[in-house]
Amino acid sequence: LENLPLGVFRRSDGAPRVGVAIGDHALDLAAAARRGLLDGLGLDVAVFEASSLNAVLGRGREVWSALRSRVRDLLSEPGSREVVEPLLASRMDLTMLLPIEVADFADFYASIHHATNMGLILRPGGEPLMPNWRHLPVGYHGRSSTVVVSGTPVTRPCGLIAPGGGTPALAPSRMLDIELEVGAVVGTGNPGGRPIAPDEFADHVFGFVLLNDWSARDIQAYEYQPLGPFLGKSFATSISPWVVPLEALRAYLVPGPPQDPPPDPYLRSEQAWAVDLDLAVDLNGQRVASTNFASMYWTLAQALAHLTVNGAVVRTGDLLGSGTVSGPDPGTYGSLMELTWRGRDPLPLADGSSRTFLEDGDTVSLTGWCQREGRPRIGFGEVAGTVVPARG
Amino acid sequence: LENLPLGVFRRSDGAPRVGVAIGDHALDLAAAARRGLLDGLGLDVAVFEASSLNAVLGRGREVWSALRSRVRDLLSEPGSREVVEPLLASRMDLTMLLPIEVADFADFYASIHHATNMGLILRPGGEPLMPNWRHLPVGYHGRSSTVVVSGTPVTRPCGLIAPGGGTPALAPSRMLDIELEVGAVVGTGNPGGRPIAPDEFADHVFGFVLLNDWSARDIQAYEYQPLGPFLGKSFATSISPWVVPLEALRAYLVPGPPQDPPPDPYLRSEQAWAVDLDLAVDLNGQRVASTNFASMYWTLAQALAHLTVNGAVVRTGDLLGSGTVSGPDPGTYGSLMELTWRGRDPLPLADGSSRTFLEDGDTVSLTGWCQREGRPRIGFGEVAGTVVPARG
Repeated sequence: LENLPLGVFRRSDGAPRVGVAIGDHALDLAAAARRGLLDGLGLDVAVFEASSLNAVLGRGREVWSALRSRVRDLLSEPGSREVVEPLLASRMDLTMLLPIEVADFADFYASIHHATNMGLILRPGGEPLMPNWRHLPVGYHGRSSTVVVSGTPVTRPCGLIAPGGGTPALAPSRMLDIELEVGAVVGTGNPGGRPIAPDEFADHVFGFVLLNDWSARDIQAYEYQPLGPFLGKSFATSISPWVVPLEALRAYLVPGPPQDPPPDPYLRSEQAWAVDLDLAVDLNGQRVASTNFASMYWTLAQALAHLTVNGAVVRTGDLLGSGTVSGPDPGTYGSLMELTWRGRDPLPLADGSSRTFLEDGDTVSLTGWCQREGRPRIGFGEVAGTVVPARG
Repeated sequence: LENLPLGVFRRSDGAPRVGVAIGDHALDLAAAARRGLLDGLGLDVAVFEASSLNAVLGRGREVWSALRSRVRDLLSEPGSREVVEPLLASRMDLTMLLPIEVADFADFYASIHHATNMGLILRPGGEPLMPNWRHLPVGYHGRSSTVVVSGTPVTRPCGLIAPGGGTPALAPSRMLDIELEVGAVVGTGNPGGRPIAPDEFADHVFGFVLLNDWSARDIQAYEYQPLGPFLGKSFATSISPWVVPLEALRAYLVPGPPQDPPPDPYLRSEQAWAVDLDLAVDLNGQRVASTNFASMYWTLAQALAHLTVNGAVVRTGDLLGSGTVSGPDPGTYGSLMELTWRGRDPLPLADGSSRTFLEDGDTVSLTGWCQREGRPRIGFGEVAGTVVPARG
């Protein structure tokens, strides 16, 4: 009753339904609305029979909050139990859909540990962080069309690759990697492009998902100068199906690390926007990394402020990725690039094999949870995907 | 009758309507459909009462072609003149809307003259073209939410700027520029991410628009390492309101320049996909550049093939920008960056003033037309915008 994440599932009759997860079950909000249980919230049945959460999210913070309170009442009041129970389905029986119709997808690079590692790996001998890195949350735009829900197979991408630095040729990526990230889902935008201050974050962002920004390091290495990552990232980005409301995370909002030098005033906040969220990477069922999201140098509140300071419009369904979450130590890195130091140190697996990058058939699962004594546990579920061979 | 571009306008009663431009007039296709004049095409009235062309474009090439034939018949058959005339409105009386709901926006860097100039300006003394440039059409993803229709004022963006290389500060851009581009509008996508060969271009792309990729060079210079342009581009991208069908351009499709080295097979085509399209830049009514789109090293057909070779999904409403169109000589450059060589050579204006970059109140108009003896003239209209001061 403390989490109440929203998602979209397909019923056995094929119709999409907006629902709320409660433990191993999901409450069908369309069915609840049809029975009048959600009356007075200004939300008609159609917004819950939609194939995405966008219609609900577009209604704004007061409606999100009122819906949340109503669902909590329905689930906790003794009198309404028998009304609600027929509306619950076992989550094991449900097919989850992509929860949002993604408008724009912007991805950041907000972990100082990840950015430093990438600098050390790709530009050895140089200063690992670019001069701009401590002054702004570096970001770029990704592709919206290839954001997919957890469980979607990931086809190994092809692209131009020049392994020895010679003439490039089209080939399947041999350096397929993951990036452990957290994504913020925008509920209400900023018509006209009014800049959003970091402390206005909760007025615009409904909640968070886990995000795996699959990356083909060899395609990216060849293509990225001078305009940044493109095909090395645009083949697939997976997100978890249940969007955890920001409102559920209040007890876990903590100050981020100190920022030195202090950022420009447009990036400063009074409130704490880092999240004490434990994260883990499992490869074929074996834990290969554990980290915490509170280690990020830039918060997603700062990322949203940066994204809009130039007058850019954000809209319902915008997705902001944090960038790879890596901590300071080897076991806390959120990519194989870092965990194997670009393949130099293969990762031993329990079956006796080892990995530098992903092989066909590998399954990666990212999980997340907030859990501290005296506070409710908030689970993020997982975002998983299995690599399938490149197109023939 | 040879062009018949599609657009969306707002009638005096406020309702959006899909229309076709014919000379100084526009034919209201919703009104035509209501009168049964478009029967048998499989297009109901609703697709013409929409606020974008997406519904029409999503129907596919055969429908685009059938609609085009029907409209041409309506406008040319003597018997239907009196039926059609009441459905025509003067274009001067119409407010044009953004013609497409933009799905993903990918922008390329396909002019060898532009890329060479940018290399010479930004990395003097080095090799102007990156090693990858002649092997693939370099591109990146832009922001869809801030694509606007011609005539929309462009607010001068703010961003972190470090003019002397010291500590950056938030300030209005002082190096606001234009980029003269052509955009391809995707009508039907590639479900499942099947790669699209260059010679399949016409099965997926409905037509072309003119595109001004407004750019804040100082914001971009500070932010762009290592992930590419972001806020320096994402504040506004303007497109022309009438989408010129690819089918109208058949007589102007020409081979592009020779490509050396020959590109990888996935980028090769049998058909000619460059367009003999004259383009011009007017600043406050004064012509400052004239160029031709056939000079581009990479065609938009190659750009689409590249975009999808990794399995990326394209969808109805996707917009692909060509990148700045610059020819080999100073008067043929498509940006102020090149025309003034990053401000070194101010551009004299007729009123006695001069420009390095854009000032508040400046109006930029990009125009385009195909015109050769013995072939029909195909006009692209214009994409215009006036710079308004930064937010206070």
